[in-house]
Amino acid sequence: MESRKYAAELIGTFWLTFTGCGSALLAAAFPQVGIGLLGVAFTFGLAVVTMAFAVGHISGCHLNPAVTVGLAAGGRFPSNQIIPYIVAQVIGAILGAALLYLIASGKAGFDLAGGFASNGYAEHSPGKYSLLACLVCEVVMTAMFIFIIMGATHGRAPAGFAPLAIGLALVMIHLVSIPVTNTSVNPARSTGPALFVGGWALQQLWLFWIAPLVGGALGGVVYRWLSDEPAGIVEGRK
Amino acid sequence: MESRKYAAELIGTFWLTFTGCGSALLAAAFPQVGIGLLGVAFTFGLAVVTMAFAVGHISGCHLNPAVTVGLAAGGRFPSNQIIPYIVAQVIGAILGAALLYLIASGKAGFDLAGGFASNGYAEHSPGKYSLLACLVCEVVMTAMFIFIIMGATHGRAPAGFAPLAIGLALVMIHLVSIPVTNTSVNPARSTGPALFVGGWALQQLWLFWIAPLVGGALGGVVYRWLSDEPAGIVEGRK
Amino acid sequence: MESRKYAAELIGTFWLTFTGCGSALLAAAFPQVGIGLLGVAFTFGLAVVTMAFAVGHISGCHLNPAVTVGLAAGGRFPSNQIIPYIVAQVIGAILGAALLYLIASGKAGFDLAGGFASNGYAEHSPGKYSLLACLVCEVVMTAMFIFIIMGATHGRAPAGFAPLAIGLALVMIHLVSIPVTNTSVNPARSTGPALFVGGWALQQLWLFWIAPLVGGALGGVVYRWLSDEPAGIVEGRK
Amino acid sequence: MESRKYAAELIGTFWLTFTGCGSALLAAAFPQVGIGLLGVAFTFGLAVVTMAFAVGHISGCHLNPAVTVGLAAGGRFPSNQIIPYIVAQVIGAILGAALLYLIASGKAGFDLAGGFASNGYAEHSPGKYSLLACLVCEVVMTAMFIFIIMGATHGRAPAGFAPLAIGLALVMIHLVSIPVTNTSVNPARSTGPALFVGGWALQQLWLFWIAPLVGGALGGVVYRWLSDEPAGIVEGRK
Repeated sequence: MESRKYAAELIGTFWLTFTGCGSALLAAAFPQVGIGLLGVAFTFGLAVVTMAFAVGHISGCHLNPAVTVGLAAGGRFPSNQIIPYIVAQVIGAILGAALLYLIASGKAGFDLAGGFASNGYAEHSPGKYSLLACLVCEVVMTAMFIFIIMGATHGRAPAGFAPLAIGLALVMIHLVSIPVTNTSVNPARSTGPALFVGGWALQQLWLFWIAPLVGGALGGVVYRWLSDEPAGIVEGRK
Repeated sequence: MESRKYAAELIGTFWLTFTGCGSALLAAAFPQVGIGLLGVAFTFGLAVVTMAFAVGHISGCHLNPAVTVGLAAGGRFPSNQIIPYIVAQVIGAILGAALLYLIASGKAGFDLAGGFASNGYAEHSPGKYSLLACLVCEVVMTAMFIFIIMGATHGRAPAGFAPLAIGLALVMIHLVSIPVTNTSVNPARSTGPALFVGGWALQQLWLFWIAPLVGGALGGVVYRWLSDEPAGIVEGRK
Repeated sequence: MESRKYAAELIGTFWLTFTGCGSALLAAAFPQVGIGLLGVAFTFGLAVVTMAFAVGHISGCHLNPAVTVGLAAGGRFPSNQIIPYIVAQVIGAILGAALLYLIASGKAGFDLAGGFASNGYAEHSPGKYSLLACLVCEVVMTAMFIFIIMGATHGRAPAGFAPLAIGLALVMIHLVSIPVTNTSVNPARSTGPALFVGGWALQQLWLFWIAPLVGGALGGVVYRWLSDEPAGIVEGRK
Repeated sequence: MESRKYAAELIGTFWLTFTGCGSALLAAAFPQVGIGLLGVAFTFGLAVVTMAFAVGHISGCHLNPAVTVGLAAGGRFPSNQIIPYIVAQVIGAILGAALLYLIASGKAGFDLAGGFASNGYAEHSPGKYSLLACLVCEVVMTAMFIFIIMGATHGRAPAGFAPLAIGLALVMIHLVSIPVTNTSVNPARSTGPALFVGGWALQQLWLFWIAPLVGGALGGVVYRWLSDEPAGIVEGRK
């Protein structure tokens, strides 16, 4: 039933946004023993690993509009399901950010002005990278992310390992690019916190929709060409 | 034979409590090269990974009353085994804490007043999070933990990977929530150290029984609804 | 078709060089929450894990001239494909370094004089290790890397796990040897950044071709002797 | 042929000792970006993961006299092979320490007085833990290590995952116990560096033979009882 798929996408994107942004907000800079960006990268990636094992067999576990669009561009996903998947993902991400707000605000001194793990460019890039650098980084990272997803779920790839391959790809993408854009590669994950922060976070949100969606489509098309898959929808594994 | 299952649960929960709390107590803040909360998170999670591979085929490797209750609520575990499983787990956790006490006290200056890796809320939350924030965090984290366990051991999930999926879920749960409650999601793990610390740790222990058990049941029920499993006990994989 | 294999090697080596060197340059020393050498090691290794799952079934996923030469020496790869594989890998690495330059230079104060993640020995070794120490380290590390690749793709090794075994080998090689040479074990990865830095990086580049190629061949031959494989090309798994 | 098994044990234990001790010596405390005890723990564990995939199908990949004795005690290994396996492991460890000495001494200011990653107790325990605490810690850690090995290679455990389970067990053992004894659980790994340091390291070496061997035998016997395996040698998986 389709509604079960949407529920799985909603719950999974809730989990990704709540835990990934939560690790950044609550634990990254904890005095003396904080998990740092390394811990944040693992949290985002393991959220995908765990959900892909848990609900991959229900919805495919995209948890990300760029994945949904990229798989459609790569001929692996029916285009009439794109919109409901994205709606479910964005609702999940907003719920994840809301829960994080509830918990984070339970500590004295909490302030949304800290950014609430939103993505940003230029003056709001963690390392102050230019708009161009941020744009290129998000496009390429998302393209490679979808390229890896297409490959790891290909029928000739080792069966069962796709959740690990995909989640670990997200780990390394964060290891490189948190200083650049705080790492999006996922418009839903970007939208959740931005709605709470408002202001600059909403004004810069366009980039974290455009760049991942363009990158995702690019990655899907490139892999399809590389693997020489036939036209029409090919069922990937997972 | 049932007694072998109880022995496996006891040994496994001993291992989880001894190593997880031990990494926090002995290694997290070691001068200059300490493993930090990131290392503690990996220790707790890998304890589950290793035990799930080692004794999963004997007892199912719950190591946690909330998992036992959650799987029962999800229709995967017979309710007449709940009590003996929980008893074995709590005994194991107490033995784990006892061994840790023996080793930790072999260093001059050791003091239980440091908290002995107990869980706590409000003034005893590592980051001073409110009771409400701690309660919500433990309920949601445990619910999602059991949700992932139900999914990863579902017959349609990739075979053999459940120990990794479940252990890595515990890693990321710790990466987010150690600053909030020191992370329980496991009443047995909370009980072991609290018995040694006494005082505030025992007074706050109720939350780390109530919240994980409620969360666990919730996660089991939600996943069962999502996957549309038939009534009655369904054997999960692992 | 052969061209698809070359494209896979090019894309994969692009990914390895861009992300591995990128993590070192952008994120390792980020203030307070930087990922350190541990994060850099995981990035290089996970680049191989992810690409091996994604394109291993297309090209074998060498991403490294030393792997190509080592597998040929070990009787697993046809020698008439060595040159085109290496050409594709070097082009990919240069493109990866170029993209990294584009992004890194989008931050005020960027300067190639920082080394741009190039490999070096003696006065350009991160920890100032002597030429001899650097040479020995690169030869042994590459030999063992190819030894592990040969073993993990052997027909009697567990099927499907080779990408994990190989990528995790690269993680631990970096964990030990970044302070020595900044870790090459891969002439293509060394060539990319060196072309941008010029000067000392180009003058020292010879070592990061000679040592890994010698080591790779050594590792292939030793494993072949150990496993008593018949003469002629034996198809490894993956 | 038996000699191939001994060669595999020698090479594997060489790799474990060289990389594990090497990460501690060269990279753990590297200024600002050092890998810390967390990186050392991963290096030791991943050495086992990688070698178990590479040569597990040749020798079983013990790399450790305590594993050899423990598996024999657990009825999984023929006792007439114990001595040659241990001899090969100790030779490998000495060669690993020798190579590490060659590389480490290529840096000005290197001094064996720093301990060269030797194991120690009491005044030579990294955290100054008492002899009793160190003894108990090594016995229990090794017992649980062999318990996990027995379980993960049992015929009913998921096939192919044993190298991950076993290597990750070694990661977490290090995460807890490096501050106590610098973590041995492996007499061969302890012997290599101690021969170079001499003095106190050799005087304390007895504990790192006695405790792991006793612990290993204990773990093998306990698991055998738990799993109710028949008498005689049972072939474990891997």
